[in-house]
Amino acid sequence: MIYADNAATTRMSDAAVHTLTSLLNETWGNPSSLYGHGQKAKDVLEKARKEVAEVIGAEPREILFTSGGSEADNQAIRSAAELGRRKGKMHIISSAFEHHAVLHTLEKMKGEGFSVTLLDVHENGMIVPAEVEAAIRDDTCLVTIMTANNEIGTIQPIREIGAICRRKNVVFHTDAVQAVGHIPLNVSEDNIDMLSASAHKFHGPKGVGFLYAKKNIQLTNLIEGGAQEHGKRAGTENVPGIAAMAEALKEANAKMAENAAHLTKMRDRLIDGLRQIPHSALNGDATHRLPGNVNFCFEGIEGESLLLLLDDKGICASSGSACTSGSLDPSHVLLAIGRVHDVAHGSLRLSIGEDITEDETDYIIRSVKEVVEYLRGFSPIWRDLMAGKKAFIL
Amino acid sequence: MIYADNAATTRMSDAAVHTLTSLLNETWGNPSSLYGHGQKAKDVLEKARKEVAEVIGAEPREILFTSGGSEADNQAIRSAAELGRRKGKMHIISSAFEHHAVLHTLEKMKGEGFSVTLLDVHENGMIVPAEVEAAIRDDTCLVTIMTANNEIGTIQPIREIGAICRRKNVVFHTDAVQAVGHIPLNVSEDNIDMLSASAHKFHGPKGVGFLYAKKNIQLTNLIEGGAQEHGKRAGTENVPGIAAMAEALKEANAKMAENAAHLTKMRDRLIDGLRQIPHSALNGDATHRLPGNVNFCFEGIEGESLLLLLDDKGICASSGSACTSGSLDPSHVLLAIGRVHDVAHGSLRLSIGEDITEDETDYIIRSVKEVVEYLRGFSPIWRDLMAGKKAFIL
Repeated sequence: MIYADNAATTRMSDAAVHTLTSLLNETWGNPSSLYGHGQKAKDVLEKARKEVAEVIGAEPREILFTSGGSEADNQAIRSAAELGRRKGKMHIISSAFEHHAVLHTLEKMKGEGFSVTLLDVHENGMIVPAEVEAAIRDDTCLVTIMTANNEIGTIQPIREIGAICRRKNVVFHTDAVQAVGHIPLNVSEDNIDMLSASAHKFHGPKGVGFLYAKKNIQLTNLIEGGAQEHGKRAGTENVPGIAAMAEALKEANAKMAENAAHLTKMRDRLIDGLRQIPHSALNGDATHRLPGNVNFCFEGIEGESLLLLLDDKGICASSGSACTSGSLDPSHVLLAIGRVHDVAHGSLRLSIGEDITEDETDYIIRSVKEVVEYLRGFSPIWRDLMAGKKAFIL
Repeated sequence: MIYADNAATTRMSDAAVHTLTSLLNETWGNPSSLYGHGQKAKDVLEKARKEVAEVIGAEPREILFTSGGSEADNQAIRSAAELGRRKGKMHIISSAFEHHAVLHTLEKMKGEGFSVTLLDVHENGMIVPAEVEAAIRDDTCLVTIMTANNEIGTIQPIREIGAICRRKNVVFHTDAVQAVGHIPLNVSEDNIDMLSASAHKFHGPKGVGFLYAKKNIQLTNLIEGGAQEHGKRAGTENVPGIAAMAEALKEANAKMAENAAHLTKMRDRLIDGLRQIPHSALNGDATHRLPGNVNFCFEGIEGESLLLLLDDKGICASSGSACTSGSLDPSHVLLAIGRVHDVAHGSLRLSIGEDITEDETDYIIRSVKEVVEYLRGFSPIWRDLMAGKKAFIL
């Protein structure tokens, strides 16, 4: 199996699995308990908090552990919105290609009286800082722009956007679920007020994530109850999972440059190879993108069939976000960068892992070529295109 | 170490650890992914849903996986409240000794215009169904009463309360975090509309729980985003954790009668032994209580010192809920059953595990006797009590 869907989820690293299992057997106490067995769990928890904070340049108390990236996004947006509401500032700026954890939360905030500006995304999958600045109003309480897009992998100029927000005194949140552990991030240098992350995207466990919130930002609880996480997130802390996340993050951070160099080489090899397929196009900027992300549209085919045939060849890939795979709608990300409905349907996301080899890359290229050709062989749209009854777009 | 704090958290069972680790290594795909590796994870997820449903007498589609009991409580209450709001019914009934995940969520709902009646708890730690019935008004949208209390272990007459709610057409939710896997529960026979549970209370992993919601109840999302869990709970499903929970629950259910028989015997042995300590009192009804729960007040001592000295003797116990251990306030549960402030401070909760032996039980009794005596030796309150300057309460 060649697993090329690391944007959907990753395999846990051996070190993270080891941390998890040894804690399950040894340090499984409740960190809120007074006795030694509980306090040991508390020590593990606070060590993990320190390690996570260190990687992103935050202070430990600025890290809140959550059940994942979606929860962190929800809590970040709700918190900034509540702070805004108290000051009579009820305008939020975001972009059209954010993750649904952001977009759907914004929909909810609209229902509560907030107005939301969704910035257009340029054809190359980029947000322009000047356009963020132009959208900021006196009543803007939050700008939330993702660090890297989950489908097309484009990396946004968050440092510049953060600087603008800081100057304008607006809270800046970034959904960094696809970025943390993959590209350098430092909340201080990057002017980030709030940041969401998810462990299973960087070889940590599922069901664990974190929210960074600058210490001057008062969080609103999403889950009420016990006094865990400074009273800001109730529920017994998943200490083994949290420690495994910290382990995975340290590891990803330590190997980041090396991994990125290899992935970038393999990514570009894939891009060059897939560009040979007629009437295909890379989605998103070729350079401002995650080291492991390749996203193509192929005219005249259905993404779903493509994936199933690639699966037959032992390749795990996706057509867009895994979170929406149940839906028949084309990707909102591809629509946002201007792909028309038909073309957006024929998309392929390959998010390769650090252990991919050159041979595997070449096998993927060969396989995609074969499958696209095969599918076009009996595609009515492709027939119309070839017969000149329909115009090629790509 | 004698671990007698299973109400705070439990050690994962070997079977649950095995399920978890084998999935981490083999079936770690994203269940929303189309390829075989993802679909295998989806099969594991749906098998777990079926197993969990079966144990509590629900249908699989009525089970929503969450990050734990607190999240489930929050979502249950918010959902019932939203349904009530649409019908102009904005009154909620609960009790004074619910878990904070319930009480704090109710506080939040009060802030949103709901009125909340908190029923008194009787001295024996019981809620009386007739009092629930009397509190129901035309605008009552929800009754939420816990199945078993987390501190004093009293088991509530939820079947009767559920029957009343059904007759009066009011949604009935029960926080069954302490009960699931420990005492028989069947949502159909027990007339339950919504039920919250947490895996780590029945030898499953931390960070995983579930909410049962009868199929006619439309849930409100707490975490917005992807289309997971029928669009009612966003975020990549923690499949390994969920499957480990199902494994632990099946196991707990299969061994329930055997475990309960042993625990009840050991519990009653502990109660009989600790009653020998002068000026002590059992908190909560002696028979309507969880098989493994013992909770005592000892006059003239501080619970915290008691715990630390028991820890020195290798006994892990607590004074109340782990969730509030950071707080200096006396337990709201003990206050609710009428214990005065001073006495409530000297409480001890022992929540024993299935593997406890008679010898260990006797060792606990001896140790508690010794420690209580020792602490009273230099307690100013005890001196005043003995000198007749203050009256004994217990």
